[in-house]
Amino acid sequence: MRQDCVALDSGDELSALRERFAVPDGVIYLDGNSLGALPRHVPARLREVVDGEWGNGLIRSWNDAGWIDAPRRTGARIARLIGATAAEVVVADSTSVNLFKLLVAALRLNPGRNVILTQHGNFPTDLYVAQGVAELLGAELRRAGPNHDAVLAALDDRVGVLALSHVDYRTGLINPMRRFNAAAHAAGALTLWDLCHSAGAIDVELDDAEADFAVGCGYKYLNGGPGAPAFAFVARRHHDRFRQPIAGWFGHAQPFAFADDYTPASGIDRVQCGTPPMLSLLALESALDAFDGVDLAALRRKSRALGDLFIRLVDETLGPFGFAVASPRDGQVRGSQVSLTHPQGHAVMQALIERGIIGDFRAPDILRFGFAPLYVRFVDVFDAVEAIGEIMGSGEWSQPRFLVRKAVT
Amino acid sequence: MRQDCVALDSGDELSALRERFAVPDGVIYLDGNSLGALPRHVPARLREVVDGEWGNGLIRSWNDAGWIDAPRRTGARIARLIGATAAEVVVADSTSVNLFKLLVAALRLNPGRNVILTQHGNFPTDLYVAQGVAELLGAELRRAGPNHDAVLAALDDRVGVLALSHVDYRTGLINPMRRFNAAAHAAGALTLWDLCHSAGAIDVELDDAEADFAVGCGYKYLNGGPGAPAFAFVARRHHDRFRQPIAGWFGHAQPFAFADDYTPASGIDRVQCGTPPMLSLLALESALDAFDGVDLAALRRKSRALGDLFIRLVDETLGPFGFAVASPRDGQVRGSQVSLTHPQGHAVMQALIERGIIGDFRAPDILRFGFAPLYVRFVDVFDAVEAIGEIMGSGEWSQPRFLVRKAVT
Repeated sequence: MRQDCVALDSGDELSALRERFAVPDGVIYLDGNSLGALPRHVPARLREVVDGEWGNGLIRSWNDAGWIDAPRRTGARIARLIGATAAEVVVADSTSVNLFKLLVAALRLNPGRNVILTQHGNFPTDLYVAQGVAELLGAELRRAGPNHDAVLAALDDRVGVLALSHVDYRTGLINPMRRFNAAAHAAGALTLWDLCHSAGAIDVELDDAEADFAVGCGYKYLNGGPGAPAFAFVARRHHDRFRQPIAGWFGHAQPFAFADDYTPASGIDRVQCGTPPMLSLLALESALDAFDGVDLAALRRKSRALGDLFIRLVDETLGPFGFAVASPRDGQVRGSQVSLTHPQGHAVMQALIERGIIGDFRAPDILRFGFAPLYVRFVDVFDAVEAIGEIMGSGEWSQPRFLVRKAVT
Repeated sequence: MRQDCVALDSGDELSALRERFAVPDGVIYLDGNSLGALPRHVPARLREVVDGEWGNGLIRSWNDAGWIDAPRRTGARIARLIGATAAEVVVADSTSVNLFKLLVAALRLNPGRNVILTQHGNFPTDLYVAQGVAELLGAELRRAGPNHDAVLAALDDRVGVLALSHVDYRTGLINPMRRFNAAAHAAGALTLWDLCHSAGAIDVELDDAEADFAVGCGYKYLNGGPGAPAFAFVARRHHDRFRQPIAGWFGHAQPFAFADDYTPASGIDRVQCGTPPMLSLLALESALDAFDGVDLAALRRKSRALGDLFIRLVDETLGPFGFAVASPRDGQVRGSQVSLTHPQGHAVMQALIERGIIGDFRAPDILRFGFAPLYVRFVDVFDAVEAIGEIMGSGEWSQPRFLVRKAVT
């Protein structure tokens, strides 16, 4: 059985990509959906940035090292991964701040409509930020669903923006972007997609699916490092008219003219606000090299194959232990993760992590396993499921130290 | 004359601090008010963060390396530099985003008043963000001054918040914080201070002066690296009631409970929004070691002495060349910079930079020289003024390549 997985890795057209990452020895890393692994070339690039560009170049590096263009340059590279054009994507701020900016921008483009429609079970920060916007502007936050028909049924002529995650962070279920965009537009609403759990792992076709706005983080499947800055997408058809509310100088048409009045930059640049955190941003830019030359269709095929294998092995070997598969079994509607539920899920995950098999836990009972197709191997999937079986069979999970809850897992 | 300056450095109680910085050979760096120099120990710390905490620790480092506490930990260290308590300061986002959050928070604390009062010539992003908030909330942006009495005269019973820079970025003039806070409070307004050009260089006494809110950047006198995250201060008396509008998960009372509804964290933590850019944040935290054991009163004395010396040398040696001192001659009301005006200021600054003497230029005609007291020497001041004299006397500034404008200077 394990030999079959070794063979799958040998035959994997993407297997060489793992060499681009510094996955530590003795670790099976199935949490790239929470924090991507370190691309091997990033440390050298950061040394150059810190010692050379900051230390020696100092303020001159804004021009000479091209810092000033990094938000657009990095956005352009992400654009290829999410089915957008270079002019439609910029890197700025965090996902939460970008959600805020683009929710307000969407409502402003749709005057007379003051409902933000989202989905029960959307990622918390998406719900919280929407709640904050609703409170600030006297709008209404409507949480529908979670099933697709319930969301569609809630689309009425008061909805200004439909704000959804592309992939559910708990279950990995993919929301049908094209279908939801079409329904929203037919109802007169705009759409805002959170791509945190899809960009870099599954196919995203923002322009083709006619999305209006999107955001996503740089630190999951894009491997940009902890808290890497986020990206924002605005469809070109809105570029002339959209206005986001945080009018910082980096979104000004001429930031270094130091004019008294705010004139928004043209196009996507007006999503920028303050001076970007350059070390984190340049780490993200460098990390994107890991996608150089990668066929995105092949990436998606591998992502599905890893998930399919995981589910098959769970079914075959973990039957007696009370796990349930919380993710879609149909790989076509499943993102690059598989979630299991188990009443002792937290302790089981702690025991796994102690063995160097790293997934994560989400309350109340979800064990998440992410399969970042750039560096996860088929044999990793095999070893992970085998370890779960051992932990359950031996009672290893029930040791007191695994029963303590930590702040973050 | 130069020998006198060498002697001043020998007698300087802070002279050893320069060793904490990697100022490049052949460079006289007078732009620490725009981007602070690289503290010598930061590269090693960043290697540890990247290779060790990200590369090997991976997601576990949120707990094991204490990433989750870095915003508060770093805020607490900044608190000492700005006369605040540790519980009142947190690091988050950019200055622009924090201005937005705290302007809205201040207006919300002062219902029935909808004027944001600021000052002509305030830093552009402060003006722009205030303009954005006014537009969003139907408030009014009132720009008074620039002189102090005009600002005070504009404080009426419609003003909800008085938002000013502590130090004017063009001239270095210090706004009298205590006096403005008292006047604002007497008029029923709250205050929001931008400390970008004061924190880390001059004395700031937020609590003693009874400030309500403050923000500031991490990358000028705090030396946190390009675009380092910003800090935010909220006076403890407002902690129970203030609400900022960008309700991201890092400002939630229990971010990892993944609840559906937003419950703000207690106190200053609710200023946080999204996942912070950890590489940039940990660089800032590390950079603050450069202030370890530093007597802030001595720092301020040196900052004034450097500026006084610069002005004296300019008066004595640059008379024929048409410069004017745009900064206060009284060191007591001058921040840690001296600005000169000159019709050919941009070209003169380019010529200086080519000689490795780095200040910056601000339209239309201002040459700014910042004196970061942690690493600038008296002899640097002497050499810089001498170089200006040479550039002017020889006509060196008029070479065609110096007449080209770049995006950022």
